[in-house]
Amino acid sequence: MILAIRLNAKRKHQGAIAADLIVHRAHPLNCETAPAALIGGVIMPSARFYVRNHFPVPRVDLDRYRLRIGGLVEQPMELTLHEIFRLRTHSMIATLECAGNGRALFDPPIDGEQWAFGAVSTAEWTGVPLAELLDWAGVRSQAREVIFRGADQGKVDDGEAVRFERSLTVEQARGSRALLAYAMNGEPLPMQHGYPLRLIVPGWYAVASVKWLTDIELIDHPFTGHFQRGKYWYEWRRESVVAREPVTYQRVRALITGPSPNAILPRGQLTIRGAAWSGAAAIARVEVAIGDDWREAELVGDRTQNCWQRWELRTRIHRPGPTTVRARATDLAGHSQPDSAERNRLGYGNNSVQCVPVLVV
Amino acid sequence: MILAIRLNAKRKHQGAIAADLIVHRAHPLNCETAPAALIGGVIMPSARFYVRNHFPVPRVDLDRYRLRIGGLVEQPMELTLHEIFRLRTHSMIATLECAGNGRALFDPPIDGEQWAFGAVSTAEWTGVPLAELLDWAGVRSQAREVIFRGADQGKVDDGEAVRFERSLTVEQARGSRALLAYAMNGEPLPMQHGYPLRLIVPGWYAVASVKWLTDIELIDHPFTGHFQRGKYWYEWRRESVVAREPVTYQRVRALITGPSPNAILPRGQLTIRGAAWSGAAAIARVEVAIGDDWREAELVGDRTQNCWQRWELRTRIHRPGPTTVRARATDLAGHSQPDSAERNRLGYGNNSVQCVPVLVV
Repeated sequence: MILAIRLNAKRKHQGAIAADLIVHRAHPLNCETAPAALIGGVIMPSARFYVRNHFPVPRVDLDRYRLRIGGLVEQPMELTLHEIFRLRTHSMIATLECAGNGRALFDPPIDGEQWAFGAVSTAEWTGVPLAELLDWAGVRSQAREVIFRGADQGKVDDGEAVRFERSLTVEQARGSRALLAYAMNGEPLPMQHGYPLRLIVPGWYAVASVKWLTDIELIDHPFTGHFQRGKYWYEWRRESVVAREPVTYQRVRALITGPSPNAILPRGQLTIRGAAWSGAAAIARVEVAIGDDWREAELVGDRTQNCWQRWELRTRIHRPGPTTVRARATDLAGHSQPDSAERNRLGYGNNSVQCVPVLVV
Repeated sequence: MILAIRLNAKRKHQGAIAADLIVHRAHPLNCETAPAALIGGVIMPSARFYVRNHFPVPRVDLDRYRLRIGGLVEQPMELTLHEIFRLRTHSMIATLECAGNGRALFDPPIDGEQWAFGAVSTAEWTGVPLAELLDWAGVRSQAREVIFRGADQGKVDDGEAVRFERSLTVEQARGSRALLAYAMNGEPLPMQHGYPLRLIVPGWYAVASVKWLTDIELIDHPFTGHFQRGKYWYEWRRESVVAREPVTYQRVRALITGPSPNAILPRGQLTIRGAAWSGAAAIARVEVAIGDDWREAELVGDRTQNCWQRWELRTRIHRPGPTTVRARATDLAGHSQPDSAERNRLGYGNNSVQCVPVLVV
């Protein structure tokens, strides 16, 4: 009842877009968050959350909406959103990041959306644990992968029309703490973030977190769809050989939210702040440099996995003139950021150390 | 720099108000959250957060804004928002509730805003720990209380014009984990929630969480301001004696977010959901009744203090006809909710068990 009242009121779910989002492309909508917008805490308001779409936002008719679970399961099912809403609920705060975040930093440029630093945000997601739904449907022993299909569709490079589809192995699907989310920051998912249902795979680059989810299909072979095989691979030409590796976990990275690039800073007290995250493990430490003077920043709040960690360094600056502020994060698995990321054909995973030029006066 | 850019853009901070807030009074603005709006997780979006104001929202000129700390301190100070923003930051998720929440349930009615169930919400707050600021200023040994003064003002019952002022004892101020918050859910505080600075006293009824904070004053005697002595006391006439007790911690309470009152529920599966909180301690358990059949609900997520706890009961209903759904919370200190709250003169702290009539068909 309640859900019907709430979720049918479509106007509410178009989702406001904050004026300070940086738009890269209007059709389909792609825009990144201004790092300076992150004033505190871990929650990014939904209207300021970055948006990465491959195809136009599909209109989902709630009366006809079904989540289909099929393929190699004991009990294929079609669930209305009301039925999903009745299931056990779970909430988690998780950071999503586009695999192309930082692409604009490659020189010479690499084709694709020119994300700088802001294709990353954090929200509280609420929905149904994927593992519980898979257990309910009963995964057959032959099943190896799980395909997640969105309602969004369009033509890709070779002119073929496809749906947006991605897969996880059955092990990944069970072990990833993935959620089928119907709410974001205490409200129904906004349209541009996957209304009415989005897969959230914590710790993974967000291409895995399929929006407008309509189908879950269990198969016995590796999935070869366009966004699984043709895109979202690191690819390097090494001498005469091409090496490839799939894009999976978010690489460790620190973002400086203040000072802003080209800020004019009076001598004296300065607080440098930001966020850091890593898909593989919680953040161990963040080091910050003013010029070449590296110091360890303070981590703010509890260490949590798959949610960015706020950090800050309160210090003093004395010498006038131009300088740079840099931040380097290291996670508990020992991963750290390179000064300059290795170039790869499609420009993914650029987690090189951010360098913010400032002028001390 | 950044802060100046962000916080000077006043238009952003007027703060959107969601269409489904229930307005009790427009001048000054007082409105409560529709419980059904709480679709999941613990975060309530700022636009849906209940608003309780005693006086019109004051316009704060950021260029002239200062937080003054004075009275019995070693080092009186005046801080700009930029200076406050440079201090150590802390974030916490905390539930605020108006002491008058539930006043509308008293029969016969009691004067005052007629809050039903929704004068309560939860947000992530970011700012400076009050205890650190007090240490910095140096509290003198004679100091007994700390007055917090807001920029809002108006006439009260006896026609006198007063500022909104509340006090805590020095012990309470140090021990309460109170925060001077400049951000709410990752954005600068919206105007109606106390922009640019609000005291947040977790676990206390929200009258303690002074908005538009401009002054902190240490004094050596009990404070007797209007909102400290004239209001916000439980007051009972017992035989010929008047008994009084100040309003402090939020009383333990469970809120049912679904089903909604007068919902028509088809027989079969039913999920009953809500939130529960208590200022004194974390929630120990929530019991839910359909008719007179009481069962224990499942607590969702980690137990945290001063932040409401989501709960749910997934069950089946068989017998058609009208019935009621009730929920009773108990906290770890052993407090539980009464079926009917004791009447007090000004109608505070009504935490009687909520009773939601429904029709099973």
